[in-house]
Amino acid sequence: MANKVTKKKPASVATEPKPICSSPLALDYNNLTSKALGSTGLTTSDLNTIDKELAKATKDFFDRRKKGELPFADLPTDPDIPKQCLKFAKKNRKKFQTVVVLGIGGSALGAKAVYTAIEPKWNRSSKKAWPKLIVTDNIDPEGFSAVLDELDLSTTCFNVISKSGATAETMTQFMLAHERLQKKLGRGKAREHLLVTTDSQNGVLRKLVNSNGYMSFPIPAGVGGRFSVLTAVGLAPLAMAGVDITELLNGARIAQDDFNKPGNIAALFAGLNWLLTTGKKRGSLVMMPYSDALSKVSDWFAQLWNESLGKAHHADGREIGSVKTAREASSDWYGQLLKGAGNAVKEDFHSGTGQTAIKALGVTDQHSQLQLYMEGPQDKTVCFLGVESFRVDVTVPSIFGEHQELQYLGGHTLGEILNFERLGTARALAENGRPNLSLTMPIVSPSSVGYLLQTLMLATVVSGALAGINALDQPGVELSKKFTYGLIGREGFSEMSERYNKKLVADRKYIVEAGE
Amino acid sequence: MANKVTKKKPASVATEPKPICSSPLALDYNNLTSKALGSTGLTTSDLNTIDKELAKATKDFFDRRKKGELPFADLPTDPDIPKQCLKFAKKNRKKFQTVVVLGIGGSALGAKAVYTAIEPKWNRSSKKAWPKLIVTDNIDPEGFSAVLDELDLSTTCFNVISKSGATAETMTQFMLAHERLQKKLGRGKAREHLLVTTDSQNGVLRKLVNSNGYMSFPIPAGVGGRFSVLTAVGLAPLAMAGVDITELLNGARIAQDDFNKPGNIAALFAGLNWLLTTGKKRGSLVMMPYSDALSKVSDWFAQLWNESLGKAHHADGREIGSVKTAREASSDWYGQLLKGAGNAVKEDFHSGTGQTAIKALGVTDQHSQLQLYMEGPQDKTVCFLGVESFRVDVTVPSIFGEHQELQYLGGHTLGEILNFERLGTARALAENGRPNLSLTMPIVSPSSVGYLLQTLMLATVVSGALAGINALDQPGVELSKKFTYGLIGREGFSEMSERYNKKLVADRKYIVEAGE
Repeated sequence: MANKVTKKKPASVATEPKPICSSPLALDYNNLTSKALGSTGLTTSDLNTIDKELAKATKDFFDRRKKGELPFADLPTDPDIPKQCLKFAKKNRKKFQTVVVLGIGGSALGAKAVYTAIEPKWNRSSKKAWPKLIVTDNIDPEGFSAVLDELDLSTTCFNVISKSGATAETMTQFMLAHERLQKKLGRGKAREHLLVTTDSQNGVLRKLVNSNGYMSFPIPAGVGGRFSVLTAVGLAPLAMAGVDITELLNGARIAQDDFNKPGNIAALFAGLNWLLTTGKKRGSLVMMPYSDALSKVSDWFAQLWNESLGKAHHADGREIGSVKTAREASSDWYGQLLKGAGNAVKEDFHSGTGQTAIKALGVTDQHSQLQLYMEGPQDKTVCFLGVESFRVDVTVPSIFGEHQELQYLGGHTLGEILNFERLGTARALAENGRPNLSLTMPIVSPSSVGYLLQTLMLATVVSGALAGINALDQPGVELSKKFTYGLIGREGFSEMSERYNKKLVADRKYIVEAGE
Repeated sequence: MANKVTKKKPASVATEPKPICSSPLALDYNNLTSKALGSTGLTTSDLNTIDKELAKATKDFFDRRKKGELPFADLPTDPDIPKQCLKFAKKNRKKFQTVVVLGIGGSALGAKAVYTAIEPKWNRSSKKAWPKLIVTDNIDPEGFSAVLDELDLSTTCFNVISKSGATAETMTQFMLAHERLQKKLGRGKAREHLLVTTDSQNGVLRKLVNSNGYMSFPIPAGVGGRFSVLTAVGLAPLAMAGVDITELLNGARIAQDDFNKPGNIAALFAGLNWLLTTGKKRGSLVMMPYSDALSKVSDWFAQLWNESLGKAHHADGREIGSVKTAREASSDWYGQLLKGAGNAVKEDFHSGTGQTAIKALGVTDQHSQLQLYMEGPQDKTVCFLGVESFRVDVTVPSIFGEHQELQYLGGHTLGEILNFERLGTARALAENGRPNLSLTMPIVSPSSVGYLLQTLMLATVVSGALAGINALDQPGVELSKKFTYGLIGREGFSEMSERYNKKLVADRKYIVEAGE
């Protein structure tokens, strides 16, 4: 399916998203094999090692799930959360023209990815009955105040999302929005414009819900931000904005079912990337949709993959990447490179494990990144994310026919040309010995997107098991938060600001100003 | 300047961009030194090697400039191009409410970066007299037709930009826009809504200008797409949209002047990244503005850096990364790693040179990527791009004071908090042995952005000289284009479609469908 050259289709207006077909997703990894690539490719013997490793990793997954450590896997079949979100949307959506998500990272990226996919511009005019969704994911004063300034507050619902209730960025957004609402609408009315999604028991936001009576949703225990798109974190704003969350969940459920079958896409995706990272030094994975609608799926994936797999310690607490561990390790994602690299680099690397997912967009980044992917260091894999049919397509007119250089374009649809670019690029990379793989869906629909997201979440946890790390934590982000608290002057963090202000590392010698 | 903790500022409304001050940019590289980082940092002895290498590379730059090979360096002082663009804007801007750039890659990214910086949302309301700028940089049928559908064609100017006139994506955009214009306005009127920016002599677009009498600008010979922001490619649409291109050029001119001084930021930026890549295995450079306004500068930079430096051949034609060359080379960006890596990886690497610039955005990606940057493989450097003052700032209200966890936020401005996040993150990375550097500008203004862009273009060419490659070409993108031509059915490329369709690399065994 994925590699086939499709015949020319007639020009068309909007194509209704089809119900999920027998194959909502296909993975084509021909361009990873030594048959396609030569010495940089995976051999049959390489590929044969996957099964054994995946059997262990999958067992680890099911063991953890049994222990209740992977509740994200149960979300596609949870009957209550979507029911509540739909009920909420039905009751409230008529009151609002805009829903603004106040959140950052995992509280923002899932809704943004799905909304961009399902409610893109092409479909805007037909959906006027539904509120528009804005996802604010930064605290830039210029950007955030511009968003606030342009809102009609009387028809805006702010959905504050933070599991802990302590996220500094989200809480500042909330405090600013709250102040504006109160000024504009008065204390009593303001409350009706706030929806809080947070932990069911703990944290300041839950306390504020309890004392102020905000509308609220709980975030289930054990589901971290980057795995939360199918909780109320994603489903509530998406339901308000008219996304068919039932079909989204339906696609995710099929992906979860498929995960029980041997050789499923999720496990294979993890296994192939594990082979590429350990055996082929592919430290980076470029996620490159050829579809504007799927452009934010790369952002969501980059958090999922990078925050889950970039780790300094094994699940059992041993440090990764110390010289000793690197020598011992034979299945670490990065241990292999450390081992292979030998004496020359040993001292320099106090290095953890992980593969860097890089966001890209086809065909745009072909004109920006392809030179590097074709000729630069052999340190990446490109994952194409393709769409077979577009919901709207347009035919290039057969004009300027007197110019031979333009004749070939007329009569083709943009969708065809975009897909030919994708196929041509995949092949060119392969002929240059550059490994790449393709995920392809028949058309962007709630169910095909649900299938894709759940597949990638499953692949991430399996990848963690292959690397011997815990994909669900993020211990490395704490130090930065503490320094920030210290600098802002939060009570209890004065030692961090003192530590920050130590002269040691602010030598004027290493600061150069323009014109010096 | 860059590392200083600033005092609390009062809440403010819009701050007028100041005229360029004595220091439009500062580079702080304390967090690259071994003093800050320990064993992963650059030692004084490392740093001492830069001067000699930079002297050679800078000589190479000036030699090439003398030969006329680097005309981009003359653009900031070119009197004619900006004059023509301003004249054009003055004459035409009242006729149009929207300017749509039809272009891709280097024809799109410069205008997008500057427009996002200078005409962001916060300033929108005050600029109603100027046309809005839309930069289309893809041919996704859903996305592109949505843009077309929403335009009022009677007040839209399409600026078609392609140096060769043969860029398939741009020409399809053009053909579609042309058809719509003719249908709506008739043949004669349609012409007045088209501005063509292309080579002064050659290519189909120039022929069409000559035969149809479109308004047009030339692209100077020898200036490639990624170095073209200060030609009419960037200046014409920016002038139409009300950006002060005189100040933009003024900033660039100062950067070009500063480049003549030893130890300037451009050369140092190149030298430091060269040391990090060759000596410290930093294959990736994360460009991370903490400013929504500068968010598209990373996209522009990622093309500039990656397409310029990702190369398989030396400037003299020798292949990079073959085992023999890798052994010989001592100053290749990647040769050092190949050499260090020894036998274990030799066979796998037929690898070019180059450092992968990765786009990121603070504080957003702190909540998405920081875990990986803190704990993952020691293969990256982070370059923070900071702004000391924001043009609009807002103060977080002191509400919810009864909750200790929120008290510290009230009274601070968003801009302060954003900058504390940047400083805290830089320090946290450094304490974890992760190299990072900071570019800081006083405020986003046309001149400070001009300074930044010219500095980064200069740094890129110097980096190419350090690596012994030609930063101005992109031979690696041709094969993909040829395959695409073959697949679309362009005359003369049938052998490419035959080559594509060879069964060899489309083994059904390596395609997995959902549910299999």
